[in-house]
Amino acid sequence: MSRPVTLFTGQWADLPLEKLAEKASAWGFDGLELACWGDHFEVDKALSDDAYVRAKRDLLARYNLTCFAISTHLVGQCVCDPIDARHKAILPPYVWGDGDPEGVRQRAAEEVKATARAASLFGVDIVNGFTGSSVWAKLYFFPPTSQADIDAGYQDFAQRWLPILDVFQAQGVKFALEVHPTEIAYDIYTAQRALEAVRHHPAFGFNFDPSHFIHQFIDPVFFIEAFPDRIFHMHVKDSRVQLNGRNSILSSHLDFGDARRGWDFVSPGRGDVKWDRIIRALNRIGYQGPLSIEWEDSGMDREWGAPEALRMVRSQDFAPSAVAFDAAFQRQ
Amino acid sequence: MSRPVTLFTGQWADLPLEKLAEKASAWGFDGLELACWGDHFEVDKALSDDAYVRAKRDLLARYNLTCFAISTHLVGQCVCDPIDARHKAILPPYVWGDGDPEGVRQRAAEEVKATARAASLFGVDIVNGFTGSSVWAKLYFFPPTSQADIDAGYQDFAQRWLPILDVFQAQGVKFALEVHPTEIAYDIYTAQRALEAVRHHPAFGFNFDPSHFIHQFIDPVFFIEAFPDRIFHMHVKDSRVQLNGRNSILSSHLDFGDARRGWDFVSPGRGDVKWDRIIRALNRIGYQGPLSIEWEDSGMDREWGAPEALRMVRSQDFAPSAVAFDAAFQRQ
Amino acid sequence: MSRPVTLFTGQWADLPLEKLAEKASAWGFDGLELACWGDHFEVDKALSDDAYVRAKRDLLARYNLTCFAISTHLVGQCVCDPIDARHKAILPPYVWGDGDPEGVRQRAAEEVKATARAASLFGVDIVNGFTGSSVWAKLYFFPPTSQADIDAGYQDFAQRWLPILDVFQAQGVKFALEVHPTEIAYDIYTAQRALEAVRHHPAFGFNFDPSHFIHQFIDPVFFIEAFPDRIFHMHVKDSRVQLNGRNSILSSHLDFGDARRGWDFVSPGRGDVKWDRIIRALNRIGYQGPLSIEWEDSGMDREWGAPEALRMVRSQDFAPSAVAFDAAFQRQ
Amino acid sequence: MSRPVTLFTGQWADLPLEKLAEKASAWGFDGLELACWGDHFEVDKALSDDAYVRAKRDLLARYNLTCFAISTHLVGQCVCDPIDARHKAILPPYVWGDGDPEGVRQRAAEEVKATARAASLFGVDIVNGFTGSSVWAKLYFFPPTSQADIDAGYQDFAQRWLPILDVFQAQGVKFALEVHPTEIAYDIYTAQRALEAVRHHPAFGFNFDPSHFIHQFIDPVFFIEAFPDRIFHMHVKDSRVQLNGRNSILSSHLDFGDARRGWDFVSPGRGDVKWDRIIRALNRIGYQGPLSIEWEDSGMDREWGAPEALRMVRSQDFAPSAVAFDAAFQRQ
Amino acid sequence: MSRPVTLFTGQWADLPLEKLAEKASAWGFDGLELACWGDHFEVDKALSDDAYVRAKRDLLARYNLTCFAISTHLVGQCVCDPIDARHKAILPPYVWGDGDPEGVRQRAAEEVKATARAASLFGVDIVNGFTGSSVWAKLYFFPPTSQADIDAGYQDFAQRWLPILDVFQAQGVKFALEVHPTEIAYDIYTAQRALEAVRHHPAFGFNFDPSHFIHQFIDPVFFIEAFPDRIFHMHVKDSRVQLNGRNSILSSHLDFGDARRGWDFVSPGRGDVKWDRIIRALNRIGYQGPLSIEWEDSGMDREWGAPEALRMVRSQDFAPSAVAFDAAFQRQ
Amino acid sequence: MSRPVTLFTGQWADLPLEKLAEKASAWGFDGLELACWGDHFEVDKALSDDAYVRAKRDLLARYNLTCFAISTHLVGQCVCDPIDARHKAILPPYVWGDGDPEGVRQRAAEEVKATARAASLFGVDIVNGFTGSSVWAKLYFFPPTSQADIDAGYQDFAQRWLPILDVFQAQGVKFALEVHPTEIAYDIYTAQRALEAVRHHPAFGFNFDPSHFIHQFIDPVFFIEAFPDRIFHMHVKDSRVQLNGRNSILSSHLDFGDARRGWDFVSPGRGDVKWDRIIRALNRIGYQGPLSIEWEDSGMDREWGAPEALRMVRSQDFAPSAVAFDAAFQRQ
Repeated sequence: MSRPVTLFTGQWADLPLEKLAEKASAWGFDGLELACWGDHFEVDKALSDDAYVRAKRDLLARYNLTCFAISTHLVGQCVCDPIDARHKAILPPYVWGDGDPEGVRQRAAEEVKATARAASLFGVDIVNGFTGSSVWAKLYFFPPTSQADIDAGYQDFAQRWLPILDVFQAQGVKFALEVHPTEIAYDIYTAQRALEAVRHHPAFGFNFDPSHFIHQFIDPVFFIEAFPDRIFHMHVKDSRVQLNGRNSILSSHLDFGDARRGWDFVSPGRGDVKWDRIIRALNRIGYQGPLSIEWEDSGMDREWGAPEALRMVRSQDFAPSAVAFDAAFQRQ
Repeated sequence: MSRPVTLFTGQWADLPLEKLAEKASAWGFDGLELACWGDHFEVDKALSDDAYVRAKRDLLARYNLTCFAISTHLVGQCVCDPIDARHKAILPPYVWGDGDPEGVRQRAAEEVKATARAASLFGVDIVNGFTGSSVWAKLYFFPPTSQADIDAGYQDFAQRWLPILDVFQAQGVKFALEVHPTEIAYDIYTAQRALEAVRHHPAFGFNFDPSHFIHQFIDPVFFIEAFPDRIFHMHVKDSRVQLNGRNSILSSHLDFGDARRGWDFVSPGRGDVKWDRIIRALNRIGYQGPLSIEWEDSGMDREWGAPEALRMVRSQDFAPSAVAFDAAFQRQ
Repeated sequence: MSRPVTLFTGQWADLPLEKLAEKASAWGFDGLELACWGDHFEVDKALSDDAYVRAKRDLLARYNLTCFAISTHLVGQCVCDPIDARHKAILPPYVWGDGDPEGVRQRAAEEVKATARAASLFGVDIVNGFTGSSVWAKLYFFPPTSQADIDAGYQDFAQRWLPILDVFQAQGVKFALEVHPTEIAYDIYTAQRALEAVRHHPAFGFNFDPSHFIHQFIDPVFFIEAFPDRIFHMHVKDSRVQLNGRNSILSSHLDFGDARRGWDFVSPGRGDVKWDRIIRALNRIGYQGPLSIEWEDSGMDREWGAPEALRMVRSQDFAPSAVAFDAAFQRQ
Repeated sequence: MSRPVTLFTGQWADLPLEKLAEKASAWGFDGLELACWGDHFEVDKALSDDAYVRAKRDLLARYNLTCFAISTHLVGQCVCDPIDARHKAILPPYVWGDGDPEGVRQRAAEEVKATARAASLFGVDIVNGFTGSSVWAKLYFFPPTSQADIDAGYQDFAQRWLPILDVFQAQGVKFALEVHPTEIAYDIYTAQRALEAVRHHPAFGFNFDPSHFIHQFIDPVFFIEAFPDRIFHMHVKDSRVQLNGRNSILSSHLDFGDARRGWDFVSPGRGDVKWDRIIRALNRIGYQGPLSIEWEDSGMDREWGAPEALRMVRSQDFAPSAVAFDAAFQRQ
Repeated sequence: MSRPVTLFTGQWADLPLEKLAEKASAWGFDGLELACWGDHFEVDKALSDDAYVRAKRDLLARYNLTCFAISTHLVGQCVCDPIDARHKAILPPYVWGDGDPEGVRQRAAEEVKATARAASLFGVDIVNGFTGSSVWAKLYFFPPTSQADIDAGYQDFAQRWLPILDVFQAQGVKFALEVHPTEIAYDIYTAQRALEAVRHHPAFGFNFDPSHFIHQFIDPVFFIEAFPDRIFHMHVKDSRVQLNGRNSILSSHLDFGDARRGWDFVSPGRGDVKWDRIIRALNRIGYQGPLSIEWEDSGMDREWGAPEALRMVRSQDFAPSAVAFDAAFQRQ
Repeated sequence: MSRPVTLFTGQWADLPLEKLAEKASAWGFDGLELACWGDHFEVDKALSDDAYVRAKRDLLARYNLTCFAISTHLVGQCVCDPIDARHKAILPPYVWGDGDPEGVRQRAAEEVKATARAASLFGVDIVNGFTGSSVWAKLYFFPPTSQADIDAGYQDFAQRWLPILDVFQAQGVKFALEVHPTEIAYDIYTAQRALEAVRHHPAFGFNFDPSHFIHQFIDPVFFIEAFPDRIFHMHVKDSRVQLNGRNSILSSHLDFGDARRGWDFVSPGRGDVKWDRIIRALNRIGYQGPLSIEWEDSGMDREWGAPEALRMVRSQDFAPSAVAFDAAFQRQ
């Protein structure tokens, strides 16, 4: 079938886009999924300056790269989160403003709406991102979090995101939540709850990233099968469980890359994700979008890893069977 | 060897102590670990009224029960926690006061000191409890929590608890933190960090409860071996992992007892804790304290479960070998 | 909670009912699930002779035993099966008749209707049984069985059983199919297909027997959760997988009890069924019927095994929790 | 060592042989294992027309392909099977005739003899195939199949096949049964029984195909070791177990490629067969025949899969060690 | 069936036999397997003093205990071993003599013959024991041990033991080698080699002890099935593998009971031996001898353990099935 | 990062060095680890003839190969071993001399010192090797080996090796013991004991070879983490566990390559070593030395295997990450 293979630029935002485009093109990627940070895709400039969008398009074309989606993980995170100092570093100053939590959340919501408009201008119909969550931090809590508290968290999510989703729909763009711990949906049951909270809004779906299910011990194939018409985009990212009786699956407040953690992200193909099964599941649901490599492995040089991951994906992206074998066995 | 088997009263605080003592005695328990809530052990009364402590002692004696430890999980939790509405329900009004977070934390700290004094009066030299944590909620966070943030959490813990521990030491009483997610220490590495934070204060150790390690995939025996001289007390409680490719180990914001959770507490002997190995490890380190059953199983009637757990513990609490087998093989 | 524990008499039909009742009573069973063969429960006599039913009731009462269900596995099997010589041995002569396959199937259908009437007379509202299947033998076939063939099998089942189920409903009796390889339903997906075939007829449900799922590698708990309102009765029977790289899960046309088989039935508690989880699932769906031991183990003396299995069941049949533990932690 | 790698043409019989030969040659195959259906190898034409055989040989030579074996799975199946409508589609009209079961079985037996003669003319000394079985459908049956029934099945097999095997021996050709569920032999124990039934006839052996053992949980290496001198040919085909607590290993009457099945065939190298161990075992028994890829994967495009499988086989087909390592450690 | 359950006295030889008999009887044992060391059974006295044997018999009768076998592990060990200082401690002075290795071996051989005579006098027809081995220490060796070296070891065994076995046969007594690392046979393949070395001498068989197979990862059931007519006696002893990525299965030259070992002996029922499967296998081969508990667990008090093990064995020693279940399903 | 990949010549000592160098160079190796046997590196000639060393260097240079280490496994083995006939075959005549054990051990010790001097002359600062052990053969012994015996073994090792290590230090060369069953250190705990025995001598460390840990069920990564500053060199060698319930992990005195063994060495990449994890661990400790392939697989042609192993190593030897991913997520 040969779906396009793209590289998500979020982990390379320390490089100017041109430099990254040159590398990605040389490695053989078909396109880039542009992060809305660094100089990769700046929403304010895209909306205020016609030339900006055109220049980005030209740059990509020069390197024979396509863009199928842009990503607003950082700003999206601030829409529902309890805001604190850590959020300042991930926001543009005009969104952070005076840092008052509710003001930040509202400006972030406006920025996500603006991102939908910028995507539309740029000719892209998928925006990936995070949503934040007012209840994530209360996941395992003592004194216990009541179900009423949890319900309130999903209502808060619905109230803040429904107006945003309406803007997306008006622009003909879809929002794909990367289902991920720290977000309003991080597994199958919370994804169901989130969908119900926004009453199955047509502009709301998922950026499927199997790596976030591995350390939860969820089979990513079940996620695909649970939401066949809501997989708007996907990330190729891998994770590995490394338990030995001493390491905790909660990972002990230790940084990624520390061998005492119970799990860690690794270069795609070196973790516990079974890619063959995922391709079969994507074939079953008819997913035709890009396979976008989000490369993150704290133990490997990224320039070794990205082309290795690309080769792995190419070796897996097969088409479904076109013949019925029983029929072949029959006489004509 | 026959260590005493006690019942922790925290999960039975809806019953008057007398009624519970009658049941526990009939089931065959050797003693009770009194919770500092309900009418089981009230710190303020113990300190203000000589007769209170005497009456408690008489009540236990009447039912042939001993008390080796009291427990202050609820108040202890409030010493380091970011305080919110949920904490009000677990505190006596005089500790909650006006609910101002820092005021609550300081009053809670004073109450824990008072608990040490009450324990001493009552003739008990172990107080089990929680510590709370200013960084627990930042366990898995986006934007990421920096190691500087984490370090600050352990400093906060040390500053608040060192003065408390000095009071304990002066009273000849020890504080045994129940190592538990939501607390400053929840696994082997964070327990090491907590011990270092309080500079191995002699009054600080652990209430070992294997159930909290099971869903972290930590072998509880390794915890015992890592801290042989800091196991001041232990809880017999059990947990079970119930993963099926759909359930998340994070448990999806679902209540205990919901079969879609990735793990759950179950009656001791019915979970994944291997009690035989734990008894051997306790024998190796020479632990002589009580085996205190903390009974919690959202799927089983507690009056069926508590005596069943007691029988299980009795069948496991064997003494170590007194002979060397090689010697027996030799001729005299 | 204490559900009644009964013994299914099918494997003891070589003994007169009175002798078996005496044994079962002495072992401590609460009742018997009577097989409609041997002298245990004869449908023709029950319908033709008032005294017969009374005498059975008296016999059971003498031994303090209750009957909650009768079982018509043998005749039920012949309703849909391709009939051959093996069926003669399991049928009463008046059902076998001249042995013409279609005639046998129709007489068997009439006899199952008669069984519903006899059950009603006897005061029992559950009849367990098999259905037979015209497509079981085509499970794994070469040349391949087409889906059209399979569909025809389910239609045949519906046509033959819908009239029977109507009689059951008229009598206020339910038919509980023992989901089992060789029957129209043998797993979760075929049980769904069977239910759909009879359009969710209210008189049609299942006799849940976990042993038949073990060697299919199906978790029996999922079956309970898939059909919470259709579990009309249950069998306590156990099975064990014994694979070693040489034994086939298909078991090589070898008899039960042969160690070269890939699986075998074993006395309840000695196999791979996890009874604690099954009791929790039954508690969740509110199943209040009997736990009926169907004892079959080709490697163990049945008189050793039946009372052992009874003790195992009694040790597992606990009630659900009556308190909320979080609440108990709060101060009143 | 480099055994030749061939492609079995059965799953490509919808293509004219010439077109398939062109593809196979381009992919790098060394030869083809011709199916006796489609236009690939027609027994009647081979025996009646000298030019036919010569033309086939020329066609293969044109593409630099060799033929080591031909395959008569379809006709062979009809020798022992209970014949029904499904068999008509897999037989040439002159074998099906009027469809009377016994007549079909006898004409199929004659056709298999004719195939031995055609193979001999074509210069090939192995004919792979199925045998059918009168007892396969009684594998797991209720009412139970007795051992006497099973014995009768093996006698029927012996009576029908011994005359055929004598013709093979006279022609200097061997018959290699593909051990496979639905056939008289489908595992180690039934293969032993089949061999004994034909009294170890020298013309009778096996076409070893590991894929049929995987879902039986049999280690294919044990099969090789059990019959070292009867492995006449082998198929490179793969299978994968996909159990999740809901899927049944019996696969619920569902078609290949359905994700709810408990197992499925997959492209060689993507399943559970451990090829390295199989090559070592083949080296130990001195098997020198072709490695013939039978490609079947209902989830993958066959033109992607066949060359991928070829590369996998080439990367595994290593020679045994020619030196003794201990000796190399010694001084000369 | 109820085989007798005996206690092997080797691990209790520090106690006088009378004291041990009193305990064993009180715990409910049926008999003792007397060790030929301590004062339990002294070969020289048995042969020289008629009263000795009678007194032993009377002592056992007083406590209602039977003796089915005596054991000469220590002397037997010295028949083939390279003798060094460690052997002195396990031999009577008249066997050790001047300690010259070959002299010790020959005197040990004579003592084993004497043991056969003493057993016969005592009325016991099984002597369990070790054989020693001249090649055990060369198991994994560098520079490598050649197969010629190994062959020489088995010849040495045969030469030394064949004359001993002839004495056994003349006395109507059998020698049961406890298959065990450090002996000439320690697994299935070496047991075959040992049997072949002594040309299947009728007086040579095995004392089956499953605990020695567990840490070799051998399924003890396969041993029973490999030598159905050579299982002369059995030990009920248990072992547990305790690997964690750091512990070596070779156990690092560490003493039993050290938690860093990769395996250890544990009280029967607490290890990895599956007793239910062993009883079934013993039932299949018709073993009717005693189940003799050899109790050894360096982490448990032996007086807690022995009666616990007895209860475990009693709960497992069931009889095989006496009915055919299929028959029970038929109508008479 | 690209560490150099070398080939250990020990298993190719039947070939003249020139011939091997030609092959290795053609396959793409970066260097050779020269064995001190065959004509590869002769210590006596190196010390007595200036031209010898120069000629070796020229030969390697001609094939563009580097040498980072030489290896003295054979002579080293004889320093502590109980000497017997097998040792004669692995020693040069001038070390074997008259074969008197103590004389051999002392001459071997002198030869190892000479090897340090020759290495220094040759410009190589690592000598890999074995140490032998006086207690290895007493690993699992009956009568039991006492801890006093074991202690004596480690003292013997220290006494014999400390003078040797002093010579190494004086020469600026390090001795890297290949941790291996049959040596004084064969796992983590015995390596600790060996290090303590030589009081952490700075010239003593390890040649890390993961293959020797696999069949001990030790995770090789734990070895790296236990001795981060003592990994002086490493071997890329692989091993595979092949247990099936019949094979013993002790491997039944059977030769390598026999399928009845419980484990065997296999070509790197085909065994149970997880190379990705090992590279990460080496990156963590900053190991910069060569990855030296010791190729040994009794079931594969070595000329197929060596280049295959080289490709495997190249595909795994990645550099650690140079960026922090969190930083990349932040805005500049």
